[in-house]
Amino acid sequence: MTVTAEQVRRLREQTGAGMMECKKALVESSGDLDKAVDALRKAGAAKAEKRGDRTASEGLVDAYIHPGSRVGVLIEVNCETDFVARTPEFADLVRNLAMQVAAAGADYVRREEVPAERVARERDIFAAQLQTQGKPAAILDKIVSGKLDKFYAEVCLLEQPYVRDDKQTVGDLVTAAASKTGENIVVRRFIRFRLGQE
Amino acid sequence: MTVTAEQVRRLREQTGAGMMECKKALVESSGDLDKAVDALRKAGAAKAEKRGDRTASEGLVDAYIHPGSRVGVLIEVNCETDFVARTPEFADLVRNLAMQVAAAGADYVRREEVPAERVARERDIFAAQLQTQGKPAAILDKIVSGKLDKFYAEVCLLEQPYVRDDKQTVGDLVTAAASKTGENIVVRRFIRFRLGQE
Repeated sequence: MTVTAEQVRRLREQTGAGMMECKKALVESSGDLDKAVDALRKAGAAKAEKRGDRTASEGLVDAYIHPGSRVGVLIEVNCETDFVARTPEFADLVRNLAMQVAAAGADYVRREEVPAERVARERDIFAAQLQTQGKPAAILDKIVSGKLDKFYAEVCLLEQPYVRDDKQTVGDLVTAAASKTGENIVVRRFIRFRLGQE
Repeated sequence: MTVTAEQVRRLREQTGAGMMECKKALVESSGDLDKAVDALRKAGAAKAEKRGDRTASEGLVDAYIHPGSRVGVLIEVNCETDFVARTPEFADLVRNLAMQVAAAGADYVRREEVPAERVARERDIFAAQLQTQGKPAAILDKIVSGKLDKFYAEVCLLEQPYVRDDKQTVGDLVTAAASKTGENIVVRRFIRFRLGQE
């Protein structure tokens, strides 16, 4: 079992333990970082669980609380440099995205994040609806995929019509901001709380 | 299979379908609400998935963004009446709780929410640390449970020392507010985003 310098570096970063201790722990855990952290803690070499608090990218964390304080949104949007993150344009974009989530809701950022079971369930329901209506089988698939697109446009933030200008999608808004700043802009995550709701 | 009026009411609320349709769907699904919703959607009786958007309790949703916009917190705190939710004292409490989470972090509201596996992992580590130190077995349990209390005081919001007055815990702060307002106050949930962190 050889241990890479990168693995050792990460373990040191997480535990604050010495280089040789980290190397030994990694060899014994066959390179499993979590197990090595536990082993070092057991040996007293790492005092407490340290979080991976290092920042991987630039951007902003912002929030929007709808008047009345019954709906609130927390959002993280990433860009490539702190310089762009500090521009009023980027701050405006992030604020508009937070307001979009507050107004329209969304369960996911993009369609790749929708769990396969949920898609299967929707597909099943659409197919059954169409059979009830006696549509010809030849065009069923096409209609189902059209209905799925509509479903994605409801639950995925980037595919939603932008509430302040429904001629574009939220994804278009992000793309426009990216091309204006010349940086890749990624909506990383968001969450929406509604008072009393799961 | 008898279906209760309450089940029918909930299904109608979720689907907007007629009473007899809901009753029939519930009988056929043997009282399974989700299956009944799907069946109604398949039959075209319910047009789309409606969320359980009804508010179960009063309170506030609030957010706190730490200066620099790299750390943000979204929080929901419940009380019993809208009257209390609208008082400046309640708003202050919620804001202070959000700032506490931003400053100190926390993974859970209360110790009952810590997953059993995580507690077992901590216990295992503490026990191994003590064996290394050669402590007598008779007092091991007591020391481990003291160390666990310390662990809870780090990861559970209500057990943390309050950052603005560490002579009391966050739980004490909530209890004091509850007794002042005469209402039960419950920190329902919170989430903390840190830029670039999982």
